[in-house]
Amino acid sequence: MRRYFPILEWLAVYDKPTFGADLLAALIVTIMLIPQSLAYALLAGLPAEVGLYASIAPLLLYAVFGTSRTLAVGPVAVVSLMTAAAVGQIAAQGTAEYLGAAIAMAVLSGLMLLGMGLLRLGFIANFLSHPVISGFISASAVLIAVGQLPGILGIAAPGHTLVAVVTGILSGISGLNPFTLLLGGFALGFLWWARTRLKAVLLRAGVRPGLATVIVRAAPVLAVALTTLATWGFGLAAHGVAVVGDIPTGLPMPALPPLDPALWQAILLPAALISLVGYVETVSVAQTLAAKRRQRIDPDQELVALGAANIGAGLSGGFPVTGGFARSVVNFDAGAQTPAAGAFTALAMALATLFLTPLLSHLPKATLAATIIVAVLGLVDLAAIRRVWASNRADFAAMAVTILLTLLVGVEAGIAAGVALSILLHLYRTSQPHVAVIGQVQGTEHFRNVRRHTVTTVPDVLALRIDEALYFPNARFLEDTLLGAIAEDKAIRHVVLNCVAVNDIDSSAVESLEAINTRLHDAGVQLHLAEVKGPVMDRLLRTHLLHDLTGTVYLTMYDAMLALAPKAARDCRALPRCETAKP
Amino acid sequence: MRRYFPILEWLAVYDKPTFGADLLAALIVTIMLIPQSLAYALLAGLPAEVGLYASIAPLLLYAVFGTSRTLAVGPVAVVSLMTAAAVGQIAAQGTAEYLGAAIAMAVLSGLMLLGMGLLRLGFIANFLSHPVISGFISASAVLIAVGQLPGILGIAAPGHTLVAVVTGILSGISGLNPFTLLLGGFALGFLWWARTRLKAVLLRAGVRPGLATVIVRAAPVLAVALTTLATWGFGLAAHGVAVVGDIPTGLPMPALPPLDPALWQAILLPAALISLVGYVETVSVAQTLAAKRRQRIDPDQELVALGAANIGAGLSGGFPVTGGFARSVVNFDAGAQTPAAGAFTALAMALATLFLTPLLSHLPKATLAATIIVAVLGLVDLAAIRRVWASNRADFAAMAVTILLTLLVGVEAGIAAGVALSILLHLYRTSQPHVAVIGQVQGTEHFRNVRRHTVTTVPDVLALRIDEALYFPNARFLEDTLLGAIAEDKAIRHVVLNCVAVNDIDSSAVESLEAINTRLHDAGVQLHLAEVKGPVMDRLLRTHLLHDLTGTVYLTMYDAMLALAPKAARDCRALPRCETAKP
Repeated sequence: MRRYFPILEWLAVYDKPTFGADLLAALIVTIMLIPQSLAYALLAGLPAEVGLYASIAPLLLYAVFGTSRTLAVGPVAVVSLMTAAAVGQIAAQGTAEYLGAAIAMAVLSGLMLLGMGLLRLGFIANFLSHPVISGFISASAVLIAVGQLPGILGIAAPGHTLVAVVTGILSGISGLNPFTLLLGGFALGFLWWARTRLKAVLLRAGVRPGLATVIVRAAPVLAVALTTLATWGFGLAAHGVAVVGDIPTGLPMPALPPLDPALWQAILLPAALISLVGYVETVSVAQTLAAKRRQRIDPDQELVALGAANIGAGLSGGFPVTGGFARSVVNFDAGAQTPAAGAFTALAMALATLFLTPLLSHLPKATLAATIIVAVLGLVDLAAIRRVWASNRADFAAMAVTILLTLLVGVEAGIAAGVALSILLHLYRTSQPHVAVIGQVQGTEHFRNVRRHTVTTVPDVLALRIDEALYFPNARFLEDTLLGAIAEDKAIRHVVLNCVAVNDIDSSAVESLEAINTRLHDAGVQLHLAEVKGPVMDRLLRTHLLHDLTGTVYLTMYDAMLALAPKAARDCRALPRCETAKP
Repeated sequence: MRRYFPILEWLAVYDKPTFGADLLAALIVTIMLIPQSLAYALLAGLPAEVGLYASIAPLLLYAVFGTSRTLAVGPVAVVSLMTAAAVGQIAAQGTAEYLGAAIAMAVLSGLMLLGMGLLRLGFIANFLSHPVISGFISASAVLIAVGQLPGILGIAAPGHTLVAVVTGILSGISGLNPFTLLLGGFALGFLWWARTRLKAVLLRAGVRPGLATVIVRAAPVLAVALTTLATWGFGLAAHGVAVVGDIPTGLPMPALPPLDPALWQAILLPAALISLVGYVETVSVAQTLAAKRRQRIDPDQELVALGAANIGAGLSGGFPVTGGFARSVVNFDAGAQTPAAGAFTALAMALATLFLTPLLSHLPKATLAATIIVAVLGLVDLAAIRRVWASNRADFAAMAVTILLTLLVGVEAGIAAGVALSILLHLYRTSQPHVAVIGQVQGTEHFRNVRRHTVTTVPDVLALRIDEALYFPNARFLEDTLLGAIAEDKAIRHVVLNCVAVNDIDSSAVESLEAINTRLHDAGVQLHLAEVKGPVMDRLLRTHLLHDLTGTVYLTMYDAMLALAPKAARDCRALPRCETAKP
């Protein structure tokens, strides 16, 4: 029961100090969430109030089902962009079909997450490697930031790829609206200054660090208030400044999403990708924060919680949500102790929806564009790109393809290509495994690669260590390698396969070993195995190989050498230890 | 030069005894090939002469480019079935478009094989695992045999799946032609008897074994001759017995395939699958036969040779060819010494095309159907299915899916699903690696799983062996496992990761290890590595992990224990060796 309703665990011991801490954190997160929820709704191509709706029910549901104490669920930039890209292919922005498709996307993605959670399929998310997700988020952030420039300039430039947006800006630049640019430029400059400098200024002015942090967090609200006032006071909407306009007052009404099978089929793949990306982001944020306080999260239950949150989002007129990095960190820093903080945020957002919306009708969209740009630029991680480049070229290839395709073709192509390429590179690598000729390290019973260490070998015994599971992609490679080695050196009478790094063996590999065994026998060479691990031995016992094997299976490599070349092995063991690594 | 033209190697030393041996083998193969080439052309839904055309140019080209001394190239059953299934989706059987598509398929498949050979991409074929290809060939053979029953019964029952063919037979059974059934039944019974009993009968009658074998091989030609004579003599064609009819006399004229881009696009995927299956069959037959005579083949050059053969087939009006199992074995057994035997077969087939075709017009199609049934039933390998079931359930799953989809949906679905499922099962397995707690085997410096062996462990040192490459699908698993183990046992002060089975490490895993290192440090636990292999160490040296590591990297596990628990390690080493495996 507690596994599926983690709320039972913390609610039983909920006390007054925890309540105070959660309430303070909730207020700070709300200040951040009001402009962000409106902005991300616009980013997704939806009416502003959809952002507010997506910030109520999902937060309450996550508080019931979530295992992270500090994760802040709600609209986030990358998933909003993915929603816009997917829904934009089905319906035109501004239509009822567009809104309906976004709502259906939330429900379908929620059902997928819930299903994966109940079937405990969280491991699927592991196939999104760190370099791919990191490259994807960086590229999406660039795409989002560039996509907001038309909003700041006061021109219309639709499109979901870098080329489309930049072309749109260049061709529309002559029609820019100076008032919009003024407001947007001010908001952008102010928010950037607040983000990078304000805290230091406040601290120097003697403000307490805690209060200074809250003031910095409130900067977007201040930008919203100032630009809204200016727009209202000078009547700028009449001069072509795009404003949010009338937002319906009142809480969202529960409603079913459109139940058109063709629509659901069309959003199947995008919903799966949104679920995957949202889940990976959620789990990595939740795990990072939980570790800092020695707490643990349950990744499979997180699927259930995120699924419930998205179903709740859809049924209350909202769009797909996930656990966001920035707001979760703020929630954590502000001292949130339990998911109740999220529930309090939901209540505060509900109050805002009831009472603040009339004040927002003169809010310029350019301010929200500026909010988005400043928020997402923090997601661009150039250091990660450099780090991966320096350490692993295959990973870098997957990362680079993800980034380029995301920017040039679109988010879905980028993420799908990244996953596919990382799997293909892995398969290619395991199809050509590393095989080392090994010898005994003097003064030990240990065997190492002859190319990297000065070791003792015996002419008539070829000891090989195969550094890979033996399975179908490399079964033929094994045959080629072994028979080639025998053909080259006629002195060999024994081949010992050190299987310590053979982590699995399948039917194809067993057939190859059978063939190798027969051919070596024909050539007067015995085949031995050493250090075969338990799971692999279990498999071999169910085949004929051990019965047909011309040689012996030894527990250790040293045992094998004691049997095949006892004097050499003992002499080597008796030598003193020394540094044997080759340069 | 010799690498791309293996003919230069054997032609230089060609002598009279070799010529005699090759000529004899060529004659025996030709006797087998005449009825088979006609039959497989009909199986592919093509006019009978297309089979003859596919048995001339391809054999000459393979003789120039092939590295196998004994492989017999030409039309084979499984590839003919795949051609029929693919081309049947594009055009109606009997039309010029159908023939054109089959010819284009040969050329495209040839170009693909040639390209893969020049790029040395032969390893791609390894992704077709033994159980998948074995299941696919067995299922195709059943499909082919059942698909020939309408031909024996004298009814029309088109379709490429088991259900379609069986339904067709049941609904058409009332219209069966008794004369056709008589001829077909006789041919089937005679061929089966010849295959299973004739040799013993001949040997008992005192015929020399060599001659007996030739007579058995000639049985299909005898069946062809007898049933053709009967059909001609009794004028059975007028009673509804389907005959091959007039075959154009003369050699095929070189011609380009249809150059319609839409057609080439439609056959792209089927051509890739045909190439893959044909290549895998070719290489496994060629390797098996080469090994028996201590010869070697070059798998990449085989791609070039098979590519040239298929391009040649297409440009001379033939359909896709490959190296067949049955005829290659006959060629080998008959004593073929060089690919010249194939060239002689081609010449004999050309003579047959020039002079024998008038005799074939009264040949009943039912006889060819019987030839096909008897030929393919030998391909059904039930023992392989039982063997895989007994030894490896994951492999069996891939095999079973391949068999079921091939029979019920079609050949392309079957082979594609088999490949995809074997890759997915591998990825799933590596995402949940085997992790063993290890301890020292007494009397040795060797460490084994505590669950399988009676070993010595120390309370404050947790020694773990991870039996998998550390990469993105299992990066999170590693974190969960290690942090879980530490949370369970508060006595642990040192964790030693034995990396002997870690065959690779990617950026995702390095980040996970960094996180693990930090979290263990926070918990007062040191992280050590032991037995890190060369390629993995090279990767780690390009990251920050070794710099940040709280513990040490040891050459051997025993070194680690000597440093962390010296007395226990030495005491254990000094104990006598004994059997420690747990039951």
